[in-house]
Amino acid sequence: MSRSRLGPNRYGKAETHVVRVTRDGETHHIRDLTVSVALSGDMEAVHLTGDNSAVLPTDTQKNTVFAFARKHGIDSPEGFGLLLARHFTGSQPAVRHARVAVEEHAWERIGDGGHSFARRGGETRTAVVHHGEDGTHVVSGLKDLVVLNSGDSEFWGYVKDEYTTLPETHDRILATEVTAQWRHANLDTDWEESYPRARRHLLEAFAGTYSLSLQQTLYAMGDRVLDGLADVCEVRLSLPNKHHFTVDLEPFGLDNDNEVFFAADRPYGLIEGAVVRDGAPDPGLAWS
Amino acid sequence: MSRSRLGPNRYGKAETHVVRVTRDGETHHIRDLTVSVALSGDMEAVHLTGDNSAVLPTDTQKNTVFAFARKHGIDSPEGFGLLLARHFTGSQPAVRHARVAVEEHAWERIGDGGHSFARRGGETRTAVVHHGEDGTHVVSGLKDLVVLNSGDSEFWGYVKDEYTTLPETHDRILATEVTAQWRHANLDTDWEESYPRARRHLLEAFAGTYSLSLQQTLYAMGDRVLDGLADVCEVRLSLPNKHHFTVDLEPFGLDNDNEVFFAADRPYGLIEGAVVRDGAPDPGLAWS
Amino acid sequence: MSRSRLGPNRYGKAETHVVRVTRDGETHHIRDLTVSVALSGDMEAVHLTGDNSAVLPTDTQKNTVFAFARKHGIDSPEGFGLLLARHFTGSQPAVRHARVAVEEHAWERIGDGGHSFARRGGETRTAVVHHGEDGTHVVSGLKDLVVLNSGDSEFWGYVKDEYTTLPETHDRILATEVTAQWRHANLDTDWEESYPRARRHLLEAFAGTYSLSLQQTLYAMGDRVLDGLADVCEVRLSLPNKHHFTVDLEPFGLDNDNEVFFAADRPYGLIEGAVVRDGAPDPGLAWS
Amino acid sequence: MSRSRLGPNRYGKAETHVVRVTRDGETHHIRDLTVSVALSGDMEAVHLTGDNSAVLPTDTQKNTVFAFARKHGIDSPEGFGLLLARHFTGSQPAVRHARVAVEEHAWERIGDGGHSFARRGGETRTAVVHHGEDGTHVVSGLKDLVVLNSGDSEFWGYVKDEYTTLPETHDRILATEVTAQWRHANLDTDWEESYPRARRHLLEAFAGTYSLSLQQTLYAMGDRVLDGLADVCEVRLSLPNKHHFTVDLEPFGLDNDNEVFFAADRPYGLIEGAVVRDGAPDPGLAWS
Repeated sequence: MSRSRLGPNRYGKAETHVVRVTRDGETHHIRDLTVSVALSGDMEAVHLTGDNSAVLPTDTQKNTVFAFARKHGIDSPEGFGLLLARHFTGSQPAVRHARVAVEEHAWERIGDGGHSFARRGGETRTAVVHHGEDGTHVVSGLKDLVVLNSGDSEFWGYVKDEYTTLPETHDRILATEVTAQWRHANLDTDWEESYPRARRHLLEAFAGTYSLSLQQTLYAMGDRVLDGLADVCEVRLSLPNKHHFTVDLEPFGLDNDNEVFFAADRPYGLIEGAVVRDGAPDPGLAWS
Repeated sequence: MSRSRLGPNRYGKAETHVVRVTRDGETHHIRDLTVSVALSGDMEAVHLTGDNSAVLPTDTQKNTVFAFARKHGIDSPEGFGLLLARHFTGSQPAVRHARVAVEEHAWERIGDGGHSFARRGGETRTAVVHHGEDGTHVVSGLKDLVVLNSGDSEFWGYVKDEYTTLPETHDRILATEVTAQWRHANLDTDWEESYPRARRHLLEAFAGTYSLSLQQTLYAMGDRVLDGLADVCEVRLSLPNKHHFTVDLEPFGLDNDNEVFFAADRPYGLIEGAVVRDGAPDPGLAWS
Repeated sequence: MSRSRLGPNRYGKAETHVVRVTRDGETHHIRDLTVSVALSGDMEAVHLTGDNSAVLPTDTQKNTVFAFARKHGIDSPEGFGLLLARHFTGSQPAVRHARVAVEEHAWERIGDGGHSFARRGGETRTAVVHHGEDGTHVVSGLKDLVVLNSGDSEFWGYVKDEYTTLPETHDRILATEVTAQWRHANLDTDWEESYPRARRHLLEAFAGTYSLSLQQTLYAMGDRVLDGLADVCEVRLSLPNKHHFTVDLEPFGLDNDNEVFFAADRPYGLIEGAVVRDGAPDPGLAWS
Repeated sequence: MSRSRLGPNRYGKAETHVVRVTRDGETHHIRDLTVSVALSGDMEAVHLTGDNSAVLPTDTQKNTVFAFARKHGIDSPEGFGLLLARHFTGSQPAVRHARVAVEEHAWERIGDGGHSFARRGGETRTAVVHHGEDGTHVVSGLKDLVVLNSGDSEFWGYVKDEYTTLPETHDRILATEVTAQWRHANLDTDWEESYPRARRHLLEAFAGTYSLSLQQTLYAMGDRVLDGLADVCEVRLSLPNKHHFTVDLEPFGLDNDNEVFFAADRPYGLIEGAVVRDGAPDPGLAWS
């Protein structure tokens, strides 16, 4: 028998899909969230012996998500996550820490009736809230935002070793699917005003940066969010390089001056990085 | 040894992902298509003996897609599909019929530079073109268009048998993910003008129909497209019923007057149907 | 207002995921099915006016799947589909036709206790049953069966046109993901004995055929099933050509005698075809 | 302009899909890997100014994967990852650390010819190798291993709060999709012998544990691997609770003594935890 101990652990209900409709006369409002809760704390007993006396069932967590949507409404992913995280850590002495991750699916109005909507598509808004003895952290974000520059992108001057065959280029398509998260130093934030601003800064920095490498674009995007949102202290980005290869049309007697591209799926470059404001507070568990 | 023969068959290159950039000075235009080609004809030999002398390689079909994007540009999914389908049927005597299916991913402009774009998300535009001895058919369409009505939807008066437990309702969420295809009787159509009109009619009919069943909404959507586009002779729709169940909050001392819903994944209702204009020409192979 | 009519239509509950455990003392048996029901018949009223009086709710269909799993057990996907299809067509006068599609996920035993299982992975077994005025049809099948030959495959002698650049090869990897369906002329079949035999014939034909084209392999696979199963009258196969490209290692001073391959995702060849026994009865709606 | 700095970052080529065939006369052997490389080090310049002089292109990394598959063969995911990670950190002074993540897709032989295979399905084998100034770490693992116990599982004695409605049960299905990773304290390991042993221990512990909670099963699985593999110092598991709900058949006059279940997709419980051997060395970057 090995001598072992319980290491880092957490448990909860993942991907509760709640839709909240608010009726303002004939005009309805809709929020559409997927909520994942993860709790941790004094959980040795359940792991070692199956004693559940400290375990709040994940089914209860799901019920709580629905009940809170009714009682408190959903003002923002961040706000709803904070409500839930604070509730769970206070609900049981064994629960020392709660992580609540929220994804929001956006809808836009169609028709005249006030109650018809189309899913917007494009990016998904995200929020991750931590609350516990470590403090409270809010990380806002988005994912699945696909963007492309068909100009102002080069790639040259890189290291060549014996396995390098890539030709340098002074004109390429730069395309990526943005996953971005930004950590707030200040929780006294208007989340509904903050999110579209961060999104806009990301798009403007992507579009406005003359790019010599995707890393440069990444840094510019993160830095722009720090510039534009005073309460944000760190931005993390994950940018897959969605390669668009110029197709060789010479065999068919055709030139191809960056007009026709093959958009490849795999493999892809993957650039990940953080941009941190000077003096940013310690992240603690914010990114876990 | 069985006595058998070759039945229906086709072959081709599927999902060639081509991106076409057109430069108008500083302003770039982008079309982003996934193209699937399927050819059929006198293909007994290759099946029975592996004699490839009638086989145009799928690799060649892929090359043709790229070369045509360069030579002819991409004016519309339908137009590009027609060009390809006509080319392939004329290219080899053994090729009697070509089917070209196109999906278009839409982009919208970001930034000021004229060359920056964000993937729009939402629905994907589709086109299926058939060309061969049977004639030429064009079916336009879209998929992945998710829509929701939070009012004006009921469901009651249905058959009850011994396995029926569903309560009737006079107020429910109606949500679906639209796959729609519409067949053109006339190929002399402005495809770029036609598509957004069809899409708008679908959305308006969904939003504007007071619904007693998803079948009724389906018919209304198809009929509206026929009404609005004179050259369309048949509409086919596939509408999954994306169930939104009202959560029972009574155990928590809360009412729930259609405010909080659980959005379920599976199982789901699936409603499929066609609306056909009186006097529509025979579809032939259009839907195959 | 257009003059239009209802064309082909059907509705039902899709993807009801039912797991049936049968206890034989300490030894448990498990069947794990996803069942999709689609009904059709006299459905004008519901489409035109929302009158649901001929509509058996999809919720009821789901309940019936679960109730039948309890009452009748699940002896095979085909047998369970037949039970359900016959029930639904008899249940309401307006229901003229039922289509029941079943997918089975296989499990294999682990441990000694008789009640522990691991999902087998690999292919999914399928069955589609039609029952109605057109008669009764059973189509068995499988999907997601990925197979590969690293020898005995060539591709040459094909048509070359101005867009052909593919070099001929006398040694290539042939890989595909088999979707196969076989239609039974006789419903008095032992489904549990028939399925593994058909699967074995498909694998043996794939492995044993020296292939000059994937079409040839397709025909050989279909023909082998007809040869081996007397009650089968038609086989349909869909075989994507999962391209494995030999990587050019010359720039690195290395040869590559078909040892290192890049496995590509898209685009891919797609070969579809049917092999039909002489004298096969008319398929009617079997493939719809 | 904000005052900011570059935080944690890495970049590389993700998901290079390489298939290696080794010919032993008529008998072929196949290894099928997806390899993701991520490098880090002195990368300020590229982020801040787009100066690529320290950047080994991701395209070169991809080439290296293919070239190494040819030169060195693939003896195991771990061994191949080690080769690559050591190469990359030594290749350029700016590269201080390499992470190589490998997924292996297993094939099994079919037919008699020695060169025919079917994808096994079931779980995917994984390995993550880190090499750099922090030292060298190897984490083996698997994912997508779906297992189910139809007996010997209870859930009761948990906390009830105002949102708890779940009834206690003394007989339930316990099903999960295992993601497991185990960290080696010793790199002098026979990887090909080690992996199947770890897999077997996971399965035996899952099947053999009378479970009062999924946490208890998780701990038992991790502890069993530590017990059985002396060189392993830590095991991390992520176990979604794939809920199988007993269907209420009373409305249809049927009992349901845990025979018929509805297998739900979302939401699901998610249990994550680590089991650590006493005296395990510090993980450093092993889990990053």
